[in-house]
Amino acid sequence: MAAIGFIGLGNMGGPMARNLVKAGHKLKVFDLSEVAVAALVEAGATKAESAADAARDADAVVTMLPAGEHVRSIYLGDAGLLAAAKKGTLFIDSSTIDVTSARDVIMAAEAVGMMMVDAPVSGGVGGAEAGTLTFMVGGSAEGFEAAKPLLEKMGKNIFHAGQAGNGQVAKVCNNMILGISMIGVSEAFLLGEKLGLDAQTLFDISSTASGQCWSMTSYCPVPGPVPASPANRNYQAGFSAAMMLKDLRLAQDASKSVKSPTPLGAQAAQLYALMEAAGADGLDFSGIIKLLRGDV
Amino acid sequence: MAAIGFIGLGNMGGPMARNLVKAGHKLKVFDLSEVAVAALVEAGATKAESAADAARDADAVVTMLPAGEHVRSIYLGDAGLLAAAKKGTLFIDSSTIDVTSARDVIMAAEAVGMMMVDAPVSGGVGGAEAGTLTFMVGGSAEGFEAAKPLLEKMGKNIFHAGQAGNGQVAKVCNNMILGISMIGVSEAFLLGEKLGLDAQTLFDISSTASGQCWSMTSYCPVPGPVPASPANRNYQAGFSAAMMLKDLRLAQDASKSVKSPTPLGAQAAQLYALMEAAGADGLDFSGIIKLLRGDV
Amino acid sequence: MAAIGFIGLGNMGGPMARNLVKAGHKLKVFDLSEVAVAALVEAGATKAESAADAARDADAVVTMLPAGEHVRSIYLGDAGLLAAAKKGTLFIDSSTIDVTSARDVIMAAEAVGMMMVDAPVSGGVGGAEAGTLTFMVGGSAEGFEAAKPLLEKMGKNIFHAGQAGNGQVAKVCNNMILGISMIGVSEAFLLGEKLGLDAQTLFDISSTASGQCWSMTSYCPVPGPVPASPANRNYQAGFSAAMMLKDLRLAQDASKSVKSPTPLGAQAAQLYALMEAAGADGLDFSGIIKLLRGDV
Amino acid sequence: MAAIGFIGLGNMGGPMARNLVKAGHKLKVFDLSEVAVAALVEAGATKAESAADAARDADAVVTMLPAGEHVRSIYLGDAGLLAAAKKGTLFIDSSTIDVTSARDVIMAAEAVGMMMVDAPVSGGVGGAEAGTLTFMVGGSAEGFEAAKPLLEKMGKNIFHAGQAGNGQVAKVCNNMILGISMIGVSEAFLLGEKLGLDAQTLFDISSTASGQCWSMTSYCPVPGPVPASPANRNYQAGFSAAMMLKDLRLAQDASKSVKSPTPLGAQAAQLYALMEAAGADGLDFSGIIKLLRGDV
Repeated sequence: MAAIGFIGLGNMGGPMARNLVKAGHKLKVFDLSEVAVAALVEAGATKAESAADAARDADAVVTMLPAGEHVRSIYLGDAGLLAAAKKGTLFIDSSTIDVTSARDVIMAAEAVGMMMVDAPVSGGVGGAEAGTLTFMVGGSAEGFEAAKPLLEKMGKNIFHAGQAGNGQVAKVCNNMILGISMIGVSEAFLLGEKLGLDAQTLFDISSTASGQCWSMTSYCPVPGPVPASPANRNYQAGFSAAMMLKDLRLAQDASKSVKSPTPLGAQAAQLYALMEAAGADGLDFSGIIKLLRGDV
Repeated sequence: MAAIGFIGLGNMGGPMARNLVKAGHKLKVFDLSEVAVAALVEAGATKAESAADAARDADAVVTMLPAGEHVRSIYLGDAGLLAAAKKGTLFIDSSTIDVTSARDVIMAAEAVGMMMVDAPVSGGVGGAEAGTLTFMVGGSAEGFEAAKPLLEKMGKNIFHAGQAGNGQVAKVCNNMILGISMIGVSEAFLLGEKLGLDAQTLFDISSTASGQCWSMTSYCPVPGPVPASPANRNYQAGFSAAMMLKDLRLAQDASKSVKSPTPLGAQAAQLYALMEAAGADGLDFSGIIKLLRGDV
Repeated sequence: MAAIGFIGLGNMGGPMARNLVKAGHKLKVFDLSEVAVAALVEAGATKAESAADAARDADAVVTMLPAGEHVRSIYLGDAGLLAAAKKGTLFIDSSTIDVTSARDVIMAAEAVGMMMVDAPVSGGVGGAEAGTLTFMVGGSAEGFEAAKPLLEKMGKNIFHAGQAGNGQVAKVCNNMILGISMIGVSEAFLLGEKLGLDAQTLFDISSTASGQCWSMTSYCPVPGPVPASPANRNYQAGFSAAMMLKDLRLAQDASKSVKSPTPLGAQAAQLYALMEAAGADGLDFSGIIKLLRGDV
Repeated sequence: MAAIGFIGLGNMGGPMARNLVKAGHKLKVFDLSEVAVAALVEAGATKAESAADAARDADAVVTMLPAGEHVRSIYLGDAGLLAAAKKGTLFIDSSTIDVTSARDVIMAAEAVGMMMVDAPVSGGVGGAEAGTLTFMVGGSAEGFEAAKPLLEKMGKNIFHAGQAGNGQVAKVCNNMILGISMIGVSEAFLLGEKLGLDAQTLFDISSTASGQCWSMTSYCPVPGPVPASPANRNYQAGFSAAMMLKDLRLAQDASKSVKSPTPLGAQAAQLYALMEAAGADGLDFSGIIKLLRGDV
């Protein structure tokens, strides 16, 4: 059983850490929220005095943080994780952050003799709690192999996406498609409705035709066709519009960095920005159909 | 076996008519192209002197025309199909046209005692030849039941989409999702490529995740992951960008008629309009990735 | 003094007709609204029994109607204006309609020996009342010369835009720029505000720099810099978002008809469609900034 | 006469420095390009050994650099300008960079007892050579007053835009309007042309109407109406599409940082990104009309 430092115990990090404890690992945890730490301590973890303290003497360190600037500041510098840990420690950053930061930090880690992978997740809070997350992992083959047994305690599908940073690339590309297709499906179902085409009928036709997509068949933005979708519970998230907007903005950053045009990706980000401006970004991201209805 | 008038023997109409002949029906066919008529006559059909002549004494009439104005002008008026046919004739319009025209013509047909359905198709020239088209049918239940046996000779999936015009609505909604998701997938795969993420790897991850859509998993816009997709034969159509643009413009007409916002649908139409302006709309619609690459 | 038939006495047509009466012309007027007719009769006009009656024996006929379908139906056919009027009558259609309808009707008028111009206006209700409208006129040189003296009673700037339909073309092109630039200015002033840049300061700089445009310098979408602009009276129209949306949709129709890409024009139409969906299209079109603020 | 350090002698910085020399100031200059430095030395400046050397003992330092990361790295740190200069030195950063970097560096400068303003320019290479640039200045009132006499040697219009960073805000807001309106004007003139409306006629009408904007009346994207505009010399820049794209991307960064929706700004950036992808971003930014024509 490994000694694991775990930093970032929010909605996602908390249940992920709990699953590592349940698997028998010895966790030392850190978060700015005393409450979050206390909950993990109750579950069997030890409290660290600081992020660096969580990394000291660990075999592996998992981080789950909001943005690239947090990852940079907690890993780098004299008081950072890389300085505090013993040589050879495995670092797994499961934060969803910009590709550039991910690559910079992994390069810095390797430069001081650490192993490190970026391993953002999809699957939401439900997946985190059930231990069924999907991990998209970027980094060396040996880093991936070392991380895999731990990731399997927290998730179900573990993909090696290639070099350092590629976990972030895979996630940002996937979620850009997701955001675009969700808006497209929402536009189509609203149009059909106004033209007198029943949602269930459109679903029955399109789900077996060329318009089929996950946004429709697993997460339909109108009530009815997919009983489990947030549309059936008044767009209670799920995966919030705010989280989708975060990912679409990361996609815009990435596309700018390599000069790759993303006209629909940009427009999708702007539509979610209108949700944000209207104070409706706490809704599930399928609630974008409410913006189209003029109902936010 | 039925006596069927068939009007419009182009890339789609030609093979559709041939399948009806093969099924044993007695076809009387009309087209402005002598060559197209001759081909059907050779296959066993009879030549009609005019569109109206094809409808006279027919049990059923199938039309396959380019646009709403052609459908209106061939059906309506003193020299039109509705005036020429005997009462109770079944009309099947398989053209892809605007919803308003479809509804107007069906209303006119019913007013003079005919049965009529709109029954646009998807599946392309390949599907027309193989008799595996999908038909989306709008009209009364009895119209649908009457049309079904004939449609089954030309297609595999026959959907009743509801009231008159709903076949067009279903098609336009489905294809708007298709156009949007194809651009979204193209943006994502280009972005991944420029960031160093292999297309096959992105496909392996995203096709089992929330970005999954038909545009990716059945028609991938980059060579490799889906061997049958047009990307592997230099974007030779398939379903051309010009045809996609036609459908996206119909979606815009429809959305305007019922005041339904379609921001991504509108932008998708504009991107295909840039393909058209560049003279690249003869490519398959997945060739939109070439526009993003700056390579049209 | 001329005998003038005037058809369409709404917010714009009413005051336009009154200005012709004031100028001494003999008006015979028609409208579906009894109230509108009564008001003109009180001002000195005669009531016509029908549109055709207003055209009979007139030297000139002015029409001011909502859309191309109304213009077609009132001009064409056995009971239409063209059939009712005496040969050589001058027709002035001041409606804002699609280019195709304008050209079709003028061609029909000339085919039966009439003179006809399309002459859409800008300047709003205020300009109609004050007789300071701008007329953009399409049609033959002689049609323009014949119409000019009448137009000068209703407007201040009378432009000959070229051949039949070009009045509509000029208006649709101008108003598409207007809609786009108004949104652009709104985005910029909101962005400046959120970044701590005072609206008056941005106005002072940008109004003398390369961002200068009428939308900013004559109709600023934030209160303050241009005291007369609707922003200072809570976006009370003025020129409503609904009217702008009508014009942007005409621009989309026109761009489709000649295959001309208009990516920002399409997106501008969609943003005003979101205003419409939110029930906020009665606001002035500069109220689009409220959509961006999340405040509609 | 002041002792001035000048760092960054490119297309803009070179002529700006020369104008300060001409005005009698004593310049110590630095650039990575030996050729650029030699040209200034020939004009009367002294060569500095490093950026820091240029700042040492200067009364004022002017920097003209490509991006925020360059400004950060040259100003900050132990070997940076702020460390090398004597207390009370006036720093003028005329680079066009992101607002956040501008504010961070000015805060750092003030923290160590320097005066600093951000002062980005507009007016292009021509304006730099003629000394007629427009400066948009952010920073304290005393910083602005101190910088003004120097800026007046290089420019004609010197605006105080408010607090630190506001020079960048003003520029980014102005240029976002400029980019959007240029595309809008291009769409309209192309649409008019395809519908048979002469460019000069559209110009004559719209330049006196509500579509009027600098992009049309001072920089018209079609040959003819404005003889000095780049359209008349085959879209030779001028202000290149690449530079416009840089500014539109800065606008996107800024809008993201304060959560301000910019749907047309985002789309404008994407259209220029398509110019970049097509290798056509060396053209003047009015050359966007060539993208719309399918001619890049």
